[in-house]
This record gives sequence, C-alpha cells and structure tokens, in this order.
Amino acid sequence: MAGSTFGTVFRVMTWGESHGKGIGVTIDGCPAGLPLSEEDIQPYLNRRKPGQSRYTTARQESDLVEILSGVFEGKTTGTPIAMMVRNTDQRSRDYGNIMNVYRPGHADFGFDSKYGFRDYRGGGRSSGRETTARVAAGAVACKLLEHFGIKVTAYVKSIGEFGIDPERFDIAERDRNPLNMPDAVCAVEAGEYLARLIEQQDSAGGVVECVADGVPAGIGEPVFDKLDACLAKAIMSIGAVKGFEIGDGFAVAKMRGSENNDPFRIAEDGSVEKTSNHSGGILGGMSDGSQIVLRAAFKPTPSISRQQNTVNRSGENTEIEIHGRHDPVIVPRAVVVVECMTALTIADLLLQNRCAKL
Amino acid sequence: MAGSTFGTVFRVMTWGESHGKGIGVTIDGCPAGLPLSEEDIQPYLNRRKPGQSRYTTARQESDLVEILSGVFEGKTTGTPIAMMVRNTDQRSRDYGNIMNVYRPGHADFGFDSKYGFRDYRGGGRSSGRETTARVAAGAVACKLLEHFGIKVTAYVKSIGEFGIDPERFDIAERDRNPLNMPDAVCAVEAGEYLARLIEQQDSAGGVVECVADGVPAGIGEPVFDKLDACLAKAIMSIGAVKGFEIGDGFAVAKMRGSENNDPFRIAEDGSVEKTSNHSGGILGGMSDGSQIVLRAAFKPTPSISRQQNTVNRSGENTEIEIHGRHDPVIVPRAVVVVECMTALTIADLLLQNRCAKL
Amino acid sequence: MAGSTFGTVFRVMTWGESHGKGIGVTIDGCPAGLPLSEEDIQPYLNRRKPGQSRYTTARQESDLVEILSGVFEGKTTGTPIAMMVRNTDQRSRDYGNIMNVYRPGHADFGFDSKYGFRDYRGGGRSSGRETTARVAAGAVACKLLEHFGIKVTAYVKSIGEFGIDPERFDIAERDRNPLNMPDAVCAVEAGEYLARLIEQQDSAGGVVECVADGVPAGIGEPVFDKLDACLAKAIMSIGAVKGFEIGDGFAVAKMRGSENNDPFRIAEDGSVEKTSNHSGGILGGMSDGSQIVLRAAFKPTPSISRQQNTVNRSGENTEIEIHGRHDPVIVPRAVVVVECMTALTIADLLLQNRCAKL
Amino acid sequence: MAGSTFGTVFRVMTWGESHGKGIGVTIDGCPAGLPLSEEDIQPYLNRRKPGQSRYTTARQESDLVEILSGVFEGKTTGTPIAMMVRNTDQRSRDYGNIMNVYRPGHADFGFDSKYGFRDYRGGGRSSGRETTARVAAGAVACKLLEHFGIKVTAYVKSIGEFGIDPERFDIAERDRNPLNMPDAVCAVEAGEYLARLIEQQDSAGGVVECVADGVPAGIGEPVFDKLDACLAKAIMSIGAVKGFEIGDGFAVAKMRGSENNDPFRIAEDGSVEKTSNHSGGILGGMSDGSQIVLRAAFKPTPSISRQQNTVNRSGENTEIEIHGRHDPVIVPRAVVVVECMTALTIADLLLQNRCAKL
Repeated sequence: MAGSTFGTVFRVMTWGESHGKGIGVTIDGCPAGLPLSEEDIQPYLNRRKPGQSRYTTARQESDLVEILSGVFEGKTTGTPIAMMVRNTDQRSRDYGNIMNVYRPGHADFGFDSKYGFRDYRGGGRSSGRETTARVAAGAVACKLLEHFGIKVTAYVKSIGEFGIDPERFDIAERDRNPLNMPDAVCAVEAGEYLARLIEQQDSAGGVVECVADGVPAGIGEPVFDKLDACLAKAIMSIGAVKGFEIGDGFAVAKMRGSENNDPFRIAEDGSVEKTSNHSGGILGGMSDGSQIVLRAAFKPTPSISRQQNTVNRSGENTEIEIHGRHDPVIVPRAVVVVECMTALTIADLLLQNRCAKL
Repeated sequence: MAGSTFGTVFRVMTWGESHGKGIGVTIDGCPAGLPLSEEDIQPYLNRRKPGQSRYTTARQESDLVEILSGVFEGKTTGTPIAMMVRNTDQRSRDYGNIMNVYRPGHADFGFDSKYGFRDYRGGGRSSGRETTARVAAGAVACKLLEHFGIKVTAYVKSIGEFGIDPERFDIAERDRNPLNMPDAVCAVEAGEYLARLIEQQDSAGGVVECVADGVPAGIGEPVFDKLDACLAKAIMSIGAVKGFEIGDGFAVAKMRGSENNDPFRIAEDGSVEKTSNHSGGILGGMSDGSQIVLRAAFKPTPSISRQQNTVNRSGENTEIEIHGRHDPVIVPRAVVVVECMTALTIADLLLQNRCAKL
Repeated sequence: MAGSTFGTVFRVMTWGESHGKGIGVTIDGCPAGLPLSEEDIQPYLNRRKPGQSRYTTARQESDLVEILSGVFEGKTTGTPIAMMVRNTDQRSRDYGNIMNVYRPGHADFGFDSKYGFRDYRGGGRSSGRETTARVAAGAVACKLLEHFGIKVTAYVKSIGEFGIDPERFDIAERDRNPLNMPDAVCAVEAGEYLARLIEQQDSAGGVVECVADGVPAGIGEPVFDKLDACLAKAIMSIGAVKGFEIGDGFAVAKMRGSENNDPFRIAEDGSVEKTSNHSGGILGGMSDGSQIVLRAAFKPTPSISRQQNTVNRSGENTEIEIHGRHDPVIVPRAVVVVECMTALTIADLLLQNRCAKL
Repeated sequence: MAGSTFGTVFRVMTWGESHGKGIGVTIDGCPAGLPLSEEDIQPYLNRRKPGQSRYTTARQESDLVEILSGVFEGKTTGTPIAMMVRNTDQRSRDYGNIMNVYRPGHADFGFDSKYGFRDYRGGGRSSGRETTARVAAGAVACKLLEHFGIKVTAYVKSIGEFGIDPERFDIAERDRNPLNMPDAVCAVEAGEYLARLIEQQDSAGGVVECVADGVPAGIGEPVFDKLDACLAKAIMSIGAVKGFEIGDGFAVAKMRGSENNDPFRIAEDGSVEKTSNHSGGILGGMSDGSQIVLRAAFKPTPSISRQQNTVNRSGENTEIEIHGRHDPVIVPRAVVVVECMTALTIADLLLQNRCAKL
C-alpha cells in the first residue's frame, strides 16, 4: 500500500532518501540459479550517475552497489537479494532555504498534505536519487531477461524540439554523447539548446523511447494486468513522466482501422509474424512476438534558479530561487531508469506466465 | 496474478466472456454504510450499452445489473458486493469463421500463445463486453467518491482529426449527441467522417479526456503507486488504449521549466492553489489539490469488414473479412469506462491514504 | 484487505450472505486446460449440505452450483471461473429476535464494532453458509491437484471425548456414517453422546484431521509463506476453529530432539524418504515429500437453545434463547471444508513454486 | 510470492542469511509521525540475542541495529523504514561437514528440492538468525501499538513436561530467569531438565503463550483474513512451531457449547464485556474487546550432537553428528519473536480496519 513495492512474482521493495544514509532495494522472488555479482549491476548504476557531463548535476556520488544477501557462490539462491548504495555527497545546507517553502513542480506540497510534514532535504523520498534503487533491481531483471533471450534498450528520442532523425539512428552513438541520443547530429543541436537554457536559468524536457526484443508472444495478463498497462504504471511511476505511449501511441487516434491493423503472415521459419508494428508489440494486453516499443514524455526539471512565485507553510505568498546543483535536463540520465522499469515489468509478467497453463 | 483483479483496498475481481452466461464483478473492500442500490449502477451501464446509435454495434443487450450481495437495508455492509449482468443477445454463429484465424489488431494470437487455446466466440474474455463489469464496479466507486465530494467526468475530445473546440466546450452537450462530445459542432463533423468510414468498411480512433474535481491534496503513494502511475495502469488496461497523458502530457517534453512549473499562491480562503495546471493536478505522484486531467488515445476498432491478410492456427497465410456487428468507433462508448476506471483508482488510493498518518 | 480474497496465484474471492440471493466465488488464476464441469464440483457441495442427518440443521438447501465463466468446451480457459449457488431456503423471520442482541460465541458484536451495523439475518457473512463458496473453489483446486497426483483427505478424528481408534481406521467408513468418522464404533458412541446433548439443548466440538498425499518436496516458501503457515491461516479462517497442528503438533513441546527428528533414508527407488513422520510432511516450511498431516480443533456450535446471558445493542443486560435450526455439532460438515481449504493452499503454493528456479 | 514479505498495510520484507553480510528488513507502510529511534528497537533485539545463558548458543552476535531510512528528526516519515544488523560472528568452517548431508528436522532437503541447491552455511535463510529481522520490524509494530494503547506480552509457558503454575504467575519474573518463564520455581525445574538433556546431547521443546491487551473490538476481517487466521500464519511462520491455539484452543473440542460460550454483560462504564474468555478475545475472526490469548508449540531444537541416520546429496545413507553451537532449547529466545509476530499482525489489521467504515 505504501507504494514502495513493485511487482508480484519478481517483487522489489525500495527504500532511502536523497540525504539519508543510502538507497537500497530488496528483490523477493528472483529465481534461483542466476549467475549474479556486483559487476552485473554497477554498469547500470554508472549510467545514471550524476556529475558526468555539463548537463547533469555537479553532485558527485560514487554509487557503489553492495549485494547484501541472496547470492551464494556466484548464483542467486531464490531468497531475497538485498542491495544498498551508501550516500556520500550530501550537502544538507543547500536545502535549508526550501524547508518551509513549496517548490513549484515538486512534491513538497503533496508530502505535507499527505503526512503532515516531510524530509525537506533534497526532496527526501521524491528525489531523483530514489531511482538508484530501481536501477539496481532493474539490472538484475535485465540479467534474468538476458537468460531468456530478451534485451531491453532505451535512448533519448528528443529534447525540447530536437528529435532524432530515424535515418541517422545508431544505437552505438547513444553511449558516445552525453545526451544519450542515438544520433550524433541531433545530440549536438540539442546540446546547444541546453547551453542556451542553462544561461537563461531554465530547463528542458524530452522523450525517451524504449524497445524490448525477444519477448515471446503471450506475456501479459488479459484484463487489468495487461503488459501495456503494467508498463504504463512502471514508466509513469518515474518522477517527471507525464505521458506514455505504446507503439504508435497517440497517433492511432487519427488512424483508420485499415491502416492501424498489423497484418499477420507466416515467416520463413514457420512462425507467426506481423508485416508492420503499429501495435508496438502488444495486442489485447499480451505480447504479440514482435518488438515492444514504448515512449515516455519527461517534463523539464522543475528546479530552476530563476525566481518563481510560490507559498510557504505558514500560508503566505513568497518567491523562491532554487540554486543547489540540478540537472538542466534529466532525460539522458532517465534512459537507464526507463530500461530498468521496463525490464522489471517484463521479468515479472514473464514469470507470472509460468502459471498460465497446466 | 491472473490479472482480473484491480485495486488494493477497494479491490474488484471481474469475470465473464462476451458469449458466456454473463459478466460480473465482486468488490471486496467497499466501506460499510454507503447507500447503494441497482438504481445507482444502471445509468452507468446504460451509457456503455450497445445499440444506441448508428455508430455503435447493433447488438441489443439489456445489460440489467443485479446486486447479489453486500447490501443490506439499502446500505453497503462492508462485505463483498457481487454484481452480475446476464448476457442475452449472443449469436455464436457469427464467430465460427474466426475460430481458426487470428484477427489482425485483436488478442487472438496472444490468447493461443498464452493458454494453448481460446474461447473464440466474440473475443471471449478480451471482448469489449468485459468492460461491463468495470462499469458496474466503477459506478459504486463513483458513488463512494461522491460521498467525499469528488466527481469524475469524461468526454470524447477527438475522433480522427476532429477535435472539440475549447471555446465551444459544454459538458451538457456530451449527453445530447451520440458521440459524447461536449461540442455540438464537432460532433456533427465527426459524425460525417464516421459515416464515410462506414461506407468504406473502415473504422476510426479518438481521444477521451477525463477530469476529476474535488480530490484533496496528498492522494497517491510517492514511489511506485503514484496516483498518475495507477491511473495510467487503469486506463491502459482498457482494450484499445495506446497512449496516456496527465496534464500537458507529451507537450511537456517541448516546454521549458519556467513555462511548465505551476506557481502556487494562497487563495482567498487561505488554502494553497496553483495559478496554472500544467501538472494535471498531480505532482510527485500525489494529487496537488487542483483538477486532475488525463487523456487516453484509443485505436480504431480492429474489426473491419474489409479483407485483411492474416494467418490461421495451422500456420497458413489466409485472408479475413470480419462481418458480425461491430462499432465503427468505440470511443463514445469508452467514455463511461474511462470515468469508471478513473473512479476505481482514486477510490482505492483515497482509502489507502487513511493509513498515511498516525 | 477486506479479507474475502484467498491465495496469490490460484486466487479466490468469495461473496454472499446466508440470507441474501446466494453464495459465490470467482477463481482468478486457475491454469488453462483443466477439464472441469459442474459434475466435478457438486459432489463436494453435497458433502457439506445441511439436512442430511439428525446431527445437522434441518434447513434444506439444494446447493446447486452453476459455473458462470472460465470454462469453454469442457476445459478451463485460464480466465476467471465464476461460480454461484442460489440461496433457496431462507426464513428471515427466524432471526428477528436476534436483531438487537449479541449472541454469545458469535461474531455479532464484532460486526457491529467494526462496521457500525450488521446483516443480522442468520449471521450474514459470518454464517457457516459462507463456506459453500470455499467448497466450490476447493473442488476446483482438488481437481487441479489430482492432475498433479495429489490427493487431500479429511475426516472427523474426535467429537467431544470420543476419538477414533487408529486400529479401526477405515477411510471408506467415513462416508457411511453421518459423523464422517473413519471408525464405525466410534461413530456410534459419538452419536449417542450427541443425542444426549440435543436433549440437553447443548452442542459439541471436535477435531478434524486432514492428510495430503503426493505433494512433492519443496512446496512452500521458506520464510513467511511457509506451507504450514499458509495452511494454518487457511484452516483457522474457518469459523469455529480454535487450534491447528501440523504433524505431532502440541505433542512436540514435550518431546526430545532425538525423538522428534525424522531420520532420512534412501528408498528402494533411490528417492529420499523418512523413517518416521513427526514433522507431518513439512520441514522449514517446505514439504518434505512425505504425507502432510494437519488437525483442526472446532469449538461447539455456539447457537444453543438454552437460555444464555448477554447484552443488547442498547447497552442492556438481557437473556437469549436461540431456537432456529442449528447443527448440534458442525464438525462432520466441516470435513469437506477442511479438505477444500487445504487443497486451495497447496494448489496456490504448488503454482507459486513454478517460479522458484530458472 | 517468494515469501519474505509479511503484511498488507504495515508490510515488511526481510532479507539475509545466517552467514551472509547481515540481516535486514524494510517496513513499507508505517504511518508518519511515530517517534522512533534505534533505542526503541535495540532492547527487543537484545532479548533474542544468543550467548546470554548456558541454554543458548555460545555464538556472540552484537546484533546492533541501524536505521537506514524512513526516520527524520526522530519521527517516521511515512516512507520505508529500512533496518540492518550486520553479522559479526560467522564461523563458516563449522558447517563444512553438513554441506552435502541433509540434517534431520531441518529445511536442507526442502531447499535442495525447491531451488536445486542451497546456502549450506548455518541454515542460510532458514536459520533462526532470520528472526532478527522479524524482531526489528516487530519492535516498530510494538511502538505503533503502544501509541494506540495496545500491549503484547509473551512468555514461556512450558518446557518439556515442566509448565508454569498459574498461581505463581509473575510477569516480572519472566525477565529474571534465563528461560523467560513467569514462574521462578518452574524455571528452576525446567533448567534442571535442560541440564540433563545437554549431558545427553539432546534438546527440548516447549510452549510460548502470548497475550495482547487493549485491542479494541472489531479488528480482523470476517472471512479469510480473520484476526486468528492471520495470527496463526504469523506464528506458524516461525521456524519450529508445530501447533497454534487461540483461547482455549484444542480444549474446546471436548467442551460443550454451554461451557464454551462467553456470556456478554454491560460493564460499569457502560461498555460491553465478557464474563469469561474461552474465545481468547476473538469471535468470528474479529477481536471482541477482551484479552487476546494465543499459544505456540515449539519442537525441540533439531540440531543435536548425537549421531543420527540420514542421507547425503549423492543419494547414499549416512550418519551425522551436528556439533557447532546450538541452543538445547530455543523456546526462551522465541518469546520475543512471538511477541513481535503478534504485534506485526495486529498492527497490520488495526490499520486495515481504518477502511472498514465510511
């Protein structure tokens, strides 16, 4: 209920605040026998780490993961896998000025309304730092999916008005530019746009796209726990996401049935395939055997150093300038988070599917 | 796990196939003391009933709901509320020709992949008829929300390229035209478009928008069970939905932080309010006290009578023409389903919130 | 939360009151492909039906089950199986006198405390009639277990001071006497005891024992969802059960480790077996491959026609005589309920176990 | 599913093995605003710590708890409370000889059957050390219950044949003798019995009794999640428990209705009370406002240094002598575990009850 638990079979529970002792997660339900070590997880955490470019916060977190349980002689035991990342670079003094003020675009007012008070240091539980735990768990889900021949890949599709050109799409390029765009030209343009925003003390949003290859047909439960519904929840649970699409997404609203339906045909190897993929790999809530495609729209970072109108806890109008250390765009760092939430969702439904038939 | 259960505190489990004995739902967790009778529920079912205009299937279902338990002397008892709608107009003969063929855009292939076989009569469990149960449960959720001063309202925002004009917005008009659009002019234009599609044996998609008024601040759980995440799952679990937005949705990806942040201010009555609502009433996964706004993109009805390429269960390429009785657009009938799924989600999180504080 | 849901993978939700329209259950999570019809379920319901002997209530309920969904062409489809038994013999007038009085030994006071009021007709939701739904669902679980070579068998072990003699144990005898005791001699003695109690307007309790054969080793989850813990919850959730034992139960508290430990040995077929079964087939919360043995202690029927001291809703001391139609002992009719709850538990954990390993 | 999660609203997930890096637990769902520090938790852990008497294992664990999240300025924030106890005294060499042998009375064979292999160091996940996490979480539940005026108290009722005398009952005495018996005389007798068993390389079982005072009427859900059913699951999930009773427990099977029913009467303050408490404070699965009384039967410690017959992983008969460091009786150390599991259960259902009424 309290909402820090995700999944049913492959179930994770996360904990930790941006300025507490650390961030952690426990996975209750990873099948036994999966080879696993910290080396499998650390690269994912490194991808979301701050301080890696001018477009990300200057905070320095080593973000070293420690596996605390559930792995014995290099393999998962079937019992809970606990992992923890200690917080190291906490500067609580940065946050004193927001203690009694509700930052626009942030969860501050909601926390006070819900709990009566809040941990005001760096957003506490609603900090982007919370995603560290998702990434640690998601890395394990990715390893599990890999065992079943499934690969999840995300990248930045656009920042502001600057979107990648499908003709220049090169996934290898994603890891070469600080914006994690699979299009070097677009990355340069978007970078210039961000530079201008930084000067203007402003921030940008963008779109992350994610694909999953190798998902067999039939994954997802037909009514409420549809694969797309579960993915939507997973992705929308990432702070700052305001929109979600599967396949052609909102474009389908303007299409005709004859355009949007994907014809089936028998492939050379005798399997069933589709000659198009408007569905984004999901029909009736179950995977249809083709590539799963989803997109998430991220809002611009709400922490900007421009002056903004707001109110304080005493019920007075006031202004705020949020200085601290904030990303002018969080979209590039969110790429691995989207991958991980997608992997967690598919892993859970893949395991659930073991009970579908006699 | 099997995915016909929704919600945690206000938990519903649905059952039934389009061509079985009926459709039903049990609500386990409605608080005791709520006045409730079939008269509260039937109007919602009537809104989704087929056969009401030229744009909906000619099937005739009386869709009369029967409350089987959980209500005593006109009030809910706190124990499970079971409800059932008997199926009446089933013509199984209509579906013989699709028994061994996978309809493009449908769940047929997924069902066979998942379970090894399927109830091929009218889509079985993946039929739109399944939403009857959601609406019956959702009507109870709406009654509960009403008790707390919360009202959920949905309407058709667009069909194909035809979108409502905000200047002509009139919610009363929604119930006067068969397309459930709150704009009479747009409804006429969209109606002409649909008439052309019917001639062309084709179908249309569209967008439903839904607002919730009166939701207090702080509803929703901060991490995985964010209010927007739960709404996304609820709405994406409706068959044919391919996209979901909260507030400004995908538009935020192109906005700047200074535009997208909603300033807070103290209202005349001393409460906290916002001077804009780009957030769609949700910040950090919790309601912020303003109107909740969401949108769902529906794909065009996949059942079209045009000839389509597909395959059969024997692994052969073939063609299909789906005659039967199908809506050229399902969007108008989906309005009440979106309302109901929204109400179910808010009701559940509203009750969960009772445990947030000492 | 509201507590009418049982199980995780093989999940059931029940509904219905003793004097409402009927009793029902939905199973969300029965694997597809299991042959199933009403003929599989009705015999279980017949075993718990009232009116079959002088020791059971004279109420006449035909208790005919109707499968409403989830079965197609004689097999389960993997989607929810809804079942319903209509109530037929309801005499609400019998209960008018208890409307404002709390019956000793009953849930009346708890219901009022919890919900503010209650359905006072025949106990409403806390009536023994609620177990009809458990039995319908349990019959499906038994069918599923049968597919996996597992058989669950319960019987009356004792009534009052009269316990069966292990030397006379004959399971076939269980179905020949109205007390469902696998010992004809004991059944006669216990029957005479009950006849005396009926004369004295009093009632008796007893013990039901249940065994499960064919459960493979490793079923049950090691920490909180131990097989014995889940069985305990299942059995203690039957009204009137006040004690639960696995294997030697309370006797182990007086044993020494050297007596209580069951030695392992290699069987002729090379499998691992135990040379004794003090553990009752469960070690460390997981099945150990031997026969699972459990016992439940039932209290005497609280509804007795003797005068008892109690209070009413107005806060006054008063007396009550409960006439109506009540079993002087419910233990024989509870046998099939214990079997069914045991089967539901094992079925659920058996399916869960599919996710234990890669 | 994987069974290391307990509770619905007050939900805990535990992790850790006896010979891993530590033991931990996360509580997702503790209401905000509860004063909490490590000083509230440590005394509970100290009560279960080994090495405190000749009757407990000589292992030395400091068992210092660290709160990692969820507490800010001395109060719970409503977000997850993570806690950890580092393992310090691990001697893996002690366990090499049991690597390939199944210890009688232990979970070894079950683990191998379930997962294909196991962490053989000290029982891994099925070690009694796992209860450290339960106690840490339970201490928080106790603090929460205290806020609502509820107190849970457990003690050793018997060891072997030596049971406490109700006439000598003195709860203060419980903390003065190493057997945690509220009867000094009985503690001496039981101690002598244990001394003889130690000489004989044998072990003893016993019974723990637990009472909860101050639980208001109406807690517990009427059907499957009855208060007694949930308590049964909680207590039976403690390793070594083989029997569970509420109130008069198994004795009710021999009682008559007229003896077993507890009459209600109006107390001087106008409240409803009972003149006896055979029910153990629970009727129809809900608390009835009187003292809750439960008992758990613990089997003798299975690790004994006598030679025992068993088998190894290669399918051969063999013998085993388990030397290591083991408690000749675990019952005294289990007292606080029973208290904590009882508190966790009541806390969860108490919170759930907030949603019972409008």
